[in-house]
Amino acid sequence: MENIERKVCDWIDSHEKKAVRLLKKLVGEKSTKGDEFHAQAVVLEKLRQFDAEVDVWEPSIKQLEQHPLFKSDRTSFKESPNIAAVKRGSGGGKSLILNGHIDVVPEGNRKDWDTEPFQPIMKQGRIYGRGTTDMKGGNTALLMAIEALEQCGVKLKGDLIFQSVVDEECGGAGTLAAVMRGYRADGALIPEPTNMKMFIKQQGSMWFRITVKGLSAHGGTRYEGVSAIEKSMLVIESIRQLERVRNKRITDSLYENITIPVPINIGTIKGGTWPSSVADTVAIEGRCGIAPNESPEAVQSEMESWLKDLEYHDEWFKHYPTEIEWFGARWMPNDLAENHELTAVLTKAYQKITDEQPVIEASPWATDGGVLSHAGKTPVIVFGPGETKMAHQANEYIEKDALIKSAKIISLFIMNWCDYER
Amino acid sequence: MENIERKVCDWIDSHEKKAVRLLKKLVGEKSTKGDEFHAQAVVLEKLRQFDAEVDVWEPSIKQLEQHPLFKSDRTSFKESPNIAAVKRGSGGGKSLILNGHIDVVPEGNRKDWDTEPFQPIMKQGRIYGRGTTDMKGGNTALLMAIEALEQCGVKLKGDLIFQSVVDEECGGAGTLAAVMRGYRADGALIPEPTNMKMFIKQQGSMWFRITVKGLSAHGGTRYEGVSAIEKSMLVIESIRQLERVRNKRITDSLYENITIPVPINIGTIKGGTWPSSVADTVAIEGRCGIAPNESPEAVQSEMESWLKDLEYHDEWFKHYPTEIEWFGARWMPNDLAENHELTAVLTKAYQKITDEQPVIEASPWATDGGVLSHAGKTPVIVFGPGETKMAHQANEYIEKDALIKSAKIISLFIMNWCDYER
Repeated sequence: MENIERKVCDWIDSHEKKAVRLLKKLVGEKSTKGDEFHAQAVVLEKLRQFDAEVDVWEPSIKQLEQHPLFKSDRTSFKESPNIAAVKRGSGGGKSLILNGHIDVVPEGNRKDWDTEPFQPIMKQGRIYGRGTTDMKGGNTALLMAIEALEQCGVKLKGDLIFQSVVDEECGGAGTLAAVMRGYRADGALIPEPTNMKMFIKQQGSMWFRITVKGLSAHGGTRYEGVSAIEKSMLVIESIRQLERVRNKRITDSLYENITIPVPINIGTIKGGTWPSSVADTVAIEGRCGIAPNESPEAVQSEMESWLKDLEYHDEWFKHYPTEIEWFGARWMPNDLAENHELTAVLTKAYQKITDEQPVIEASPWATDGGVLSHAGKTPVIVFGPGETKMAHQANEYIEKDALIKSAKIISLFIMNWCDYER
Repeated sequence: MENIERKVCDWIDSHEKKAVRLLKKLVGEKSTKGDEFHAQAVVLEKLRQFDAEVDVWEPSIKQLEQHPLFKSDRTSFKESPNIAAVKRGSGGGKSLILNGHIDVVPEGNRKDWDTEPFQPIMKQGRIYGRGTTDMKGGNTALLMAIEALEQCGVKLKGDLIFQSVVDEECGGAGTLAAVMRGYRADGALIPEPTNMKMFIKQQGSMWFRITVKGLSAHGGTRYEGVSAIEKSMLVIESIRQLERVRNKRITDSLYENITIPVPINIGTIKGGTWPSSVADTVAIEGRCGIAPNESPEAVQSEMESWLKDLEYHDEWFKHYPTEIEWFGARWMPNDLAENHELTAVLTKAYQKITDEQPVIEASPWATDGGVLSHAGKTPVIVFGPGETKMAHQANEYIEKDALIKSAKIISLFIMNWCDYER
């Protein structure tokens, strides 16, 4: 390790309380969809301390709609600003985007939480709260890395572009807006919770809504109706089979440790209006994974024709076929070449800090990397603190040590990707 | 048939347009839970034309709560008045309650209706709209019968008590309030849609809410969570089995033509909050039938212990047992002695009008008869126009001819039950 590298790492180590404070401040501002404003204000307050050009803007739906990759159910980004901060390099280095999303998913059932989801606390080396892992922990690592470089007087040669974007959880319109505003680079790192594995391929995904029909009747003579709830059980079972068929096709060795490489998640179900009536409609919403080498269109038509085949299992669906909509969100898959320099530079930084070989895998979930690579032509690697299994869960937490360690790895990665004045 | 009986029937036959107009007016006023006021105003307008003591009152929750049979999720009956109208007899006859509920269930999915549910229309001898069958058609038959008697100068000996009650669809608090206000009689008729069969036993029922737990996770690694939606499918299947077990026990010949004598209906399902998350909770609401000879408490503990046994089928339920609440509504079953005079008098009236023997059955659904007989010690027979299978359905309708025919049968029944001055 170079002296300057050691200095940067030491700075981070000696400021871990600062890192925890920043993360708690970010988590304390609930930033679910449409409500990202106050958390972005915390980011902004931090960025204003840096020597950087800060750009804050509300994405324009009108502009976004011009882009073929835009797919969202949002009608406005009022009070949902994106932020970018550019530290201009002295020239001669490669440029780098550091991208993190500020939005978090809802907290789910409060009763499952042992703590208040938006009042973060630290217990036994873990910081608890919604978004600690996905992904305000990663964002904090980025900000700590940048601050460390600045505090230690590192002069980068390539441009460094930090982005705090909205709407990742709903399909990536925030990152798409950043691409459309002109932000591109020679490479990008997204510190989503990979448990410090390097994810060079990411599953894409899309949301679907399946409407299952029944025939209403009085509950006391329920046999005179047809329960949409019972029919929806057949639909769910059929989707489980489709998931098995789709995943059998995936042979990429990067997926060998992933239980289900491209899952189909049934996230919500809602049907019926009255306990004493037979339910006449059920709506099922979920998320269908897209393999790195698949197109969204191909996945859609496979699922649509699969559901159409339900009529061969149950005559009811012949007369009342399910309806499927691809609504709200879509995340493009991402596919980084296995020998790309991003991997090599990050591997070296990882080794310097951990003395170990990194694990290189494919991610079972989508990131904004799909938008950055497809729309922004910016190659993307995903690497960050926190474990996937914590994301979207009750009692979400991140290990403080992982947060600090990843900040150090990321700071060395930035120095060696962008290069710096010696 | 006596001359005066013929006169009454002729009056009804020659005023069928009036009957249809009244029914349409009642159906035109949407009277779902909490919104019964305007439909009751139509009833009141009609009653004010009669020689009767009219009583209009909003049931008091405070008073109702004193009664062990009260079970409702209502917190107020403001603007949900009950109505009773008493025509005092001249003495020496038996008293009779004519009881109909004014509330209707919601219209369900509007797209399934070919007509506007609350803009009734007549087509080919049928009147279409929410509540035509359940049970504003029956109420109209009662009002036509009473008007016919009055117009034809019939002087009853026994008291005749007409009741237009709220909240039947939610558990019978309206009728309970009428009982608590002192309305009792030697017998009662409730013109629920029996398709003019006589129902001397009625299934009771209760509402339940089952909460099924899961474990949330990111949809992309759904195998790290446990889907409450998938677990709820096991719960629903288990309830289907319980229904089979319970119905095998029922051997009463009155139920021999009923496909499922005491069904357990799963009416609503709701779970999950986000398409990309594994659902951590599902709530299932439904209606459990109570056989005429069962107590609600026995049914509750059978279902509770059945659900507890899920842990033997799936380890998950050992750690996360389902929770069950008996919420909102409960309808008591009703059990009229087979040789009760109500049946004999109604049978004679039926024969006079139809020249046929009536069908005597047990009903697969509950009525306010359970409250009238258990709380009010008033024996109850259920008989009315309209078919059960239309109740709570889209495109609900009633046959005009059945409405008129039942009005005639009911008018003869009243005359012969209460007796009249000759």
